[in-house]
Amino acid sequence: MDTCPNPVIILVNPQLGENIGTAARAMYNGGLTQLRLVRPKMGWPNPHAIQPAAGALSVLQNVEVFETVAEAIADLQGVFATTARTRDMAKPVHTPRQAAAAMHARHAQQERIGILFGPERTGLHNEDLSFADTLITVPLNPAYTSLNLAQAVLLIAYEWFQLTQQAAEVTAQLHAEHILAPKEELLGLFQHLEGELDRSGFLRVAHKRPTMVRNLRNIFLRASLNAQEVRTLRGVISDLVAPYYGDRSGQSPQNPAE
Amino acid sequence: MDTCPNPVIILVNPQLGENIGTAARAMYNGGLTQLRLVRPKMGWPNPHAIQPAAGALSVLQNVEVFETVAEAIADLQGVFATTARTRDMAKPVHTPRQAAAAMHARHAQQERIGILFGPERTGLHNEDLSFADTLITVPLNPAYTSLNLAQAVLLIAYEWFQLTQQAAEVTAQLHAEHILAPKEELLGLFQHLEGELDRSGFLRVAHKRPTMVRNLRNIFLRASLNAQEVRTLRGVISDLVAPYYGDRSGQSPQNPAE
Repeated sequence: MDTCPNPVIILVNPQLGENIGTAARAMYNGGLTQLRLVRPKMGWPNPHAIQPAAGALSVLQNVEVFETVAEAIADLQGVFATTARTRDMAKPVHTPRQAAAAMHARHAQQERIGILFGPERTGLHNEDLSFADTLITVPLNPAYTSLNLAQAVLLIAYEWFQLTQQAAEVTAQLHAEHILAPKEELLGLFQHLEGELDRSGFLRVAHKRPTMVRNLRNIFLRASLNAQEVRTLRGVISDLVAPYYGDRSGQSPQNPAE
Repeated sequence: MDTCPNPVIILVNPQLGENIGTAARAMYNGGLTQLRLVRPKMGWPNPHAIQPAAGALSVLQNVEVFETVAEAIADLQGVFATTARTRDMAKPVHTPRQAAAAMHARHAQQERIGILFGPERTGLHNEDLSFADTLITVPLNPAYTSLNLAQAVLLIAYEWFQLTQQAAEVTAQLHAEHILAPKEELLGLFQHLEGELDRSGFLRVAHKRPTMVRNLRNIFLRASLNAQEVRTLRGVISDLVAPYYGDRSGQSPQNPAE
């Protein structure tokens, strides 16, 4: 079976071309590529949308325009609508995160989903909201809940993307880039440092030695060192002790303790 | 003990006043109010910041300006830095969601946190990143990861806010607004409808009656009706059957089956 297309972003009566462009970028950030417009105030195509959509022009090139919300949602199985006014609507209200989970579940069952966004100043009218199965409201600072159109699109698309396989891969890759040194190399560093400190006399008080060693090891354990950093620290130790080994040239042996 | 202040947003070398204004709005959306600027390119105060910060002027009024990143973070215990370049930095990399959890944990231990954002075009330089404990990268569509400054601030502030008590209250309130009808009222609706359908003969085939009743009930169960909707539907039924009861005035009894 073909993969079901990703959710469609539907802008109802958007006022300014610029905002259509920035909304196109925001949805593309979250991997959404299908944009529908219902009665855009300044018509379509709109040259003012192009510059603000830099990098997401492919989204603009595939825009579909409709006269009514009913036509714009006719081929969809699931309709979500963003609104700050949820009272007395008698529909389930989701946060963007809950909506993303619901959309993914329905998408997995091959349902086509659309998300309605209202005009910049007024938001969706009650009649537009009547077409929706589910409302979406973003929990924000009660003292300041105002979002512009592109920001509202961004938060929905961002939450959609976080539940995709691609996001899981991106996140795994981010974490893979910080690979800790193997414990063997870390223990080599401890042995090197403690060997030199035994020699220098820093650890000479026998009954204090275990605590001092533990404290030192904790510092380097907490530092979450990678392999390169372990090598760097061993170089630092070697360099510091080089004079003791008779090397005053600055060309210290890398690992004199080995 | 005093409550620890919320995380500080630190914009390093922001280019345009407009972007400082929109960043102020975005952070305030997430309940963050402390903004620091390091060497803003056009100086500070900047009149171009005011209009774009509409509604979040209180954030602008308390801006602190610093000459260096080192000075801007001097009083903080935790420093996070947003960047798309995480390779070879040998620091933990968090998604915004992971970072929000980490920031809340540290905030709960009375640590003061700051989050660094770089200039619009270039992002943070490696030297700025060197001040951070933890890097933050937003998992986004690999084909299009570009975010503007205010959007980057919004996603971090949004994730911070989602873990606050206030967000929990907002979310609970959203869901509280959709209170389903008590089952007693729903059963009253079923009884009313089925009573009238028994009378009209719609349910006359005895062996089909249980299935037909079950299907009808499922429709209204799935509809997740609230109390007002149950009353509306009972009104609809009463109105439809009014002629049978000899009422042709349109003044049908509300609940003839009771």
